[in-house]
Amino acid sequence: MNWEQWFADRVAEREAAGLRRILKPRGAGDPVIDLAGNDYLGLSTHPDVRRAAADAALTWGAGAGASRLVTGTLELHDALERELAAFTGWPAALAFSTGYHANLSVVAALVGKGDLVVSDAHVHASLIDAVRLSRADVAVARHNDAADVARILAANPGRRTLVLVESIYSVLGDAAPLAELAALAEQHGALLVVDEAHGVGVVGEGGRGLVHAAGLAGHPHVVLTVTLSKAMGAQGGVLLGPASFREHLVNAARPFIFDTGLAPASTAGALASLRHLVGHPDLPGVIRTRVDALAAALAVEAPAGAVLSVPMPSPQAALAAQAACLEEGVRVACFRPPSVPDGVSRLRITTNAGVPDADWAHATDVVTRASKEHR
Amino acid sequence: MNWEQWFADRVAEREAAGLRRILKPRGAGDPVIDLAGNDYLGLSTHPDVRRAAADAALTWGAGAGASRLVTGTLELHDALERELAAFTGWPAALAFSTGYHANLSVVAALVGKGDLVVSDAHVHASLIDAVRLSRADVAVARHNDAADVARILAANPGRRTLVLVESIYSVLGDAAPLAELAALAEQHGALLVVDEAHGVGVVGEGGRGLVHAAGLAGHPHVVLTVTLSKAMGAQGGVLLGPASFREHLVNAARPFIFDTGLAPASTAGALASLRHLVGHPDLPGVIRTRVDALAAALAVEAPAGAVLSVPMPSPQAALAAQAACLEEGVRVACFRPPSVPDGVSRLRITTNAGVPDADWAHATDVVTRASKEHR
Repeated sequence: MNWEQWFADRVAEREAAGLRRILKPRGAGDPVIDLAGNDYLGLSTHPDVRRAAADAALTWGAGAGASRLVTGTLELHDALERELAAFTGWPAALAFSTGYHANLSVVAALVGKGDLVVSDAHVHASLIDAVRLSRADVAVARHNDAADVARILAANPGRRTLVLVESIYSVLGDAAPLAELAALAEQHGALLVVDEAHGVGVVGEGGRGLVHAAGLAGHPHVVLTVTLSKAMGAQGGVLLGPASFREHLVNAARPFIFDTGLAPASTAGALASLRHLVGHPDLPGVIRTRVDALAAALAVEAPAGAVLSVPMPSPQAALAAQAACLEEGVRVACFRPPSVPDGVSRLRITTNAGVPDADWAHATDVVTRASKEHR
Repeated sequence: MNWEQWFADRVAEREAAGLRRILKPRGAGDPVIDLAGNDYLGLSTHPDVRRAAADAALTWGAGAGASRLVTGTLELHDALERELAAFTGWPAALAFSTGYHANLSVVAALVGKGDLVVSDAHVHASLIDAVRLSRADVAVARHNDAADVARILAANPGRRTLVLVESIYSVLGDAAPLAELAALAEQHGALLVVDEAHGVGVVGEGGRGLVHAAGLAGHPHVVLTVTLSKAMGAQGGVLLGPASFREHLVNAARPFIFDTGLAPASTAGALASLRHLVGHPDLPGVIRTRVDALAAALAVEAPAGAVLSVPMPSPQAALAAQAACLEEGVRVACFRPPSVPDGVSRLRITTNAGVPDADWAHATDVVTRASKEHR
């Protein structure tokens, strides 16, 4: 077998389907207004956050140097875990190198062959991979349909069961019925795993997330994932739950045990973002105001979180609108297959509270025009 | 079901088996001599590397802000990938947030249901998880036994097949018969995936790794993983191979597509380490000299890489020797189940070229005495 040819053939297939992706490196001084990333509060480039990350690299070095179980646990990790747990209202937290590692861990360390995972149809790729890794049986529930989850749980009494959801879904921007799902989990003895990737820093009191807003912080049938690379502006993921949950993960989660600890600069950057958020509880409100106004201008439903999703007639139309925005200095993203749950291509427009008001007004104007032209 | 109780019971089970692990956060000014981590060249705390990581955080911010496919590819990533590819002798490289992500990707993006993976019995947890994720059939080959690999390949003609090995194994410290394995891969049309986690920076001309030393750089039936969190002193992992291999991964590797780009400080830290290594080609020789001398003192076989593995009669004896070293200011690690392929507990002593000569002499003395006392 000629592997190089096999790789080239796979790329050609994507090209033919209009789905080939190419990496475009950006420079540090990029003047384009970014409405494409997930840096919802603009904290990754906030002066305090940059400084904290830089200071940590100078003080601690560029890497943690070992697994967290050996010598890779730094006092920095400890501080981040304690402060994030206090902020979101949980007893304990454990930081991972990526949100992917956190999601792989929470599923694979809690269920195995013969157990059950009830997974919302729209959960993130990392949770889908996590279920496969765990070897548990999986039942996919209709998206945001608590009655479907109830039906599956009732049909599987006595099994160790996880229910996997996101608090706010990235593609459609809708919120999960968390209170209902937590009640179902409690009733059936299941554990509700909530991925707050797009919730913490964006919604809830001072950005505490949707689980906190739903009054579920510390609920005995809920645990959650928080991402450090989105509103927290750095890199990594954190699992939150009871102290015994954290202890179990330390001993059983392979993507935690067999990985180097999160780098000092990323840990300190996330911690500085968290502290900034604690000191500026009104910051997530800027997202809310902006996203509501932009949704009205685009004539789409306002999302629960920071990401506006504008359906487009084809992947090509989405790309054309994206190109038109870039020509006027605004970067938006596209959702195209296979990153969409329903095959519909979309413009993906991130509300970023860190963009200055004048830039935001310009960007709103550009995006509104471009999306109307290509729909 | 009471989940908190279930977690607590799991921890109690580990405790009863003498295998409970507890995280011990370390401070930045820790005076203990570290022979426990994987920072083989001491580069994570080299002034140039700290400075480069800090400057990147100041220039680029604390995070990449988005998936590499959206706006998360930085010119920094590009520079690291190009220079690491040139250094190791490959056409193309792709950086991931962790070595775990890289290993999950290389397997899951290349094989699937109905395909075959031939896996050395001692490969890292991330490769084992990768195989499970891929859903390919797996045949475990006896450790470092090329004849067994040949037998499996011959019994499975015409199947798309990966052969998974590490260049240097962490626990036993032995090297894979790479030339033989590459010849077998070529003969049978398979692809040999080599994890150079413990090879690059440590062995080969100027630290170019074991694949390079075996004359296999650019071989059409070989690809490799390089870790950025060990000898490169930062965080992340990189896959190296043909340009079409990189392109395929960009389009197909879920742990690449659905993850935020590697943080600027980690990327720049790894790049600075690489440049330091290029400028100091004799640095890996310091590891060689030290590890050979220490192996002689400990009366164990010298390993192929930087990690000395000293078998101990029990997990308890390993812990006692470790505690005795720490009392004299030297931190070593233990291998205990389930991190050992054969159930034998060991002291794990890392040769670190960054430790000053006087400290190294002291550490050698301490480790030799402690390990003899408890064997």
